[in-house]
Amino acid sequence: MTDSQRWLLPEGIEEALPASAERLESRRRQLLDLYHTWGYELVIPPLVEYLESLLTGTGHGLALQTFKLTDQLNGRLMGLRADMTPQVARIAAHQLAHRDILRLCYIGSVVHTRPVDFAGSRSPMQVGCELYGHAGLDGDFEVLNLMLETLRICQVEAPLLDLGHVAIYRQLVAAAGLEPNEESELFALMQNKAMPDLRAALAAWDIDAAAREHLLVLPELNGDLSVLDEARQRLKTAGSSVQLALDDLEAIARRLQLRHPNLMLHFDLAELRGYHYHTGLVFAAFLPGAGQEVARGGRYDEIGREFGRARPATGFSTDLRTLVRLSTAPAEESSGGIFAPADHDPALQAMVEVLRLEGRRVIQGFQGQVQDPQAAGCAQILVKQNNQWTVVDVSA
Amino acid sequence: MTDSQRWLLPEGIEEALPASAERLESRRRQLLDLYHTWGYELVIPPLVEYLESLLTGTGHGLALQTFKLTDQLNGRLMGLRADMTPQVARIAAHQLAHRDILRLCYIGSVVHTRPVDFAGSRSPMQVGCELYGHAGLDGDFEVLNLMLETLRICQVEAPLLDLGHVAIYRQLVAAAGLEPNEESELFALMQNKAMPDLRAALAAWDIDAAAREHLLVLPELNGDLSVLDEARQRLKTAGSSVQLALDDLEAIARRLQLRHPNLMLHFDLAELRGYHYHTGLVFAAFLPGAGQEVARGGRYDEIGREFGRARPATGFSTDLRTLVRLSTAPAEESSGGIFAPADHDPALQAMVEVLRLEGRRVIQGFQGQVQDPQAAGCAQILVKQNNQWTVVDVSA
Repeated sequence: MTDSQRWLLPEGIEEALPASAERLESRRRQLLDLYHTWGYELVIPPLVEYLESLLTGTGHGLALQTFKLTDQLNGRLMGLRADMTPQVARIAAHQLAHRDILRLCYIGSVVHTRPVDFAGSRSPMQVGCELYGHAGLDGDFEVLNLMLETLRICQVEAPLLDLGHVAIYRQLVAAAGLEPNEESELFALMQNKAMPDLRAALAAWDIDAAAREHLLVLPELNGDLSVLDEARQRLKTAGSSVQLALDDLEAIARRLQLRHPNLMLHFDLAELRGYHYHTGLVFAAFLPGAGQEVARGGRYDEIGREFGRARPATGFSTDLRTLVRLSTAPAEESSGGIFAPADHDPALQAMVEVLRLEGRRVIQGFQGQVQDPQAAGCAQILVKQNNQWTVVDVSA
Repeated sequence: MTDSQRWLLPEGIEEALPASAERLESRRRQLLDLYHTWGYELVIPPLVEYLESLLTGTGHGLALQTFKLTDQLNGRLMGLRADMTPQVARIAAHQLAHRDILRLCYIGSVVHTRPVDFAGSRSPMQVGCELYGHAGLDGDFEVLNLMLETLRICQVEAPLLDLGHVAIYRQLVAAAGLEPNEESELFALMQNKAMPDLRAALAAWDIDAAAREHLLVLPELNGDLSVLDEARQRLKTAGSSVQLALDDLEAIARRLQLRHPNLMLHFDLAELRGYHYHTGLVFAAFLPGAGQEVARGGRYDEIGREFGRARPATGFSTDLRTLVRLSTAPAEESSGGIFAPADHDPALQAMVEVLRLEGRRVIQGFQGQVQDPQAAGCAQILVKQNNQWTVVDVSA
């Protein structure tokens, strides 16, 4: 193996060098501070845990995305986390079960066995918030606003917000009374919006004509707010839970329009990402130009039950690396620094200490090294003037 | 599997709940800010990378400590990092090779296959600094001071500093001209300070009498500064590199005494932790009461060569979880918060926004929820008085 091969990182595995690491750290602090002011408390889940915990209440997709490890102490299978949401749900259900309303936030790296999308990353830096214990729209609205605020602080401009509600699809599927294998096939066809195949499959299955019609209509129900009225008409006979879900979508949309008059809203009633654990309102933010999803979330009231503490839950998550990459903020100027020449004079050391305590960046020169402040990235230097160490500009 | 089993984390794998996560985050910021003022730039190495990179220039011990993963894209072996130091060395040698003097810092979780010590953790939160490009004592002194400053900021009180220099042992081994298998045996005996076995082994091997005597003396050379004078005498004929190493130890000790008059110094010339990659001065900080090592470091000038860029290097690392656990700082009071009742009044929402921008923590009440500020951990509440939303104490 040559040196250059040894240096290469695996595909989609990212590291951050100083300039980019500083931006990530600065955004990280801004976001955690934001979540703190909204009452969301930080938790730090572990990088690895037993596979059953990591995959509880999640779908087959996450199992494929999770690297497996054998615990050498007892031979049990562990996973390297590919998603922190189930970890936070476990913590909420077990460690913090006594609190009625619980707001948690988290940030950390996750690893995927394979790239999820075109960007090809296998090492997102996941950051998100979860709200437990409130089933009403107030909770969804808070989490949605916090997601939008996250994008605003990261200067990811003008997202489009995509809204859906998985209770609609759930109700239509229940009404159709499909076999489990038919249900899986329907799900795949619906996700791909493969209309001819969907039509053929629905024609072949032995289901009620109205239920068939409803399922065929669903993929067409996407667009602006007027889609909700259309859905009310075309799914009129689909049951009250469908109408309630449409009411929820409309109420959330009205509140969002009031608070964010410039936000573009889009509705997609066949949107099924995260279907396996989501139960209600689902949402995702897109950059219309890039066509890229930048954050997503939704309600998943059932997950806590798997951990022995069922309660309503809603949340969002995003990837800090993506947000920093898509940010329109100008690159921050490096703060430069002050060069301290190689000199063991205690007065110099005392001066250096004072400057550092003030938050100034002081680069210490070393004996045997060329004393070049500019090579060290410093525009200022400490110089002894009238027996006193003083900061002066390098050009002076 | 019962619920409680599913909740259990693997032995030695730690998570942090809100109070502890907040302390870790606050310390993390203080330390990264400290390193910034000393000119150390943050890098973020990946959680996983190819095994050859992770283990380059390191010993057998790290290979055993590293979980292995198969890259599903090409079948190559990757590792889940068990130590970030080699990752930072790779970054320094490859990505940042053009800079003469390079100061880097890092923080992140690592995972060990097995617990290293009595504390039993397999998931330290490693934090450390590395200085590349300076071979002199000024560099060692800077890194040592930064390690002590790290402990001071984390309020880990009164550490004892253990100093050694692996060039001494290296020279004695070279002079003895041992076979490779003898050398490994000697290393194990020396590390365990197994004197009778050491004596027997040295007697059995065909080596020069003076070299044997020097190797037998070495484990006895530990104690306060006077050990250095004793070593000068008893290793007088051991060669100039031994004498130079003793000079280095003495010079560093004098400078440390000047700057930290209360620091307890201890010397151990048979100290060989990290021997496989260390090349010069090595050091570790202990809590005398706990007998626990809290930070360690040293010089390892050769590691860059393996990555194609040889240059001097010295650094230290520690575990933030341990530092927070051993801190004598009183637990911080929770900052409390302000409760905002469930009310869609835009004036209330505007007020909440202003308070949050000021950094205040505002907990939003929800419709259908009992409006109990104290259950939400709030000592204050927003109340409408004279048509104006005002923050008042809950007791008022």
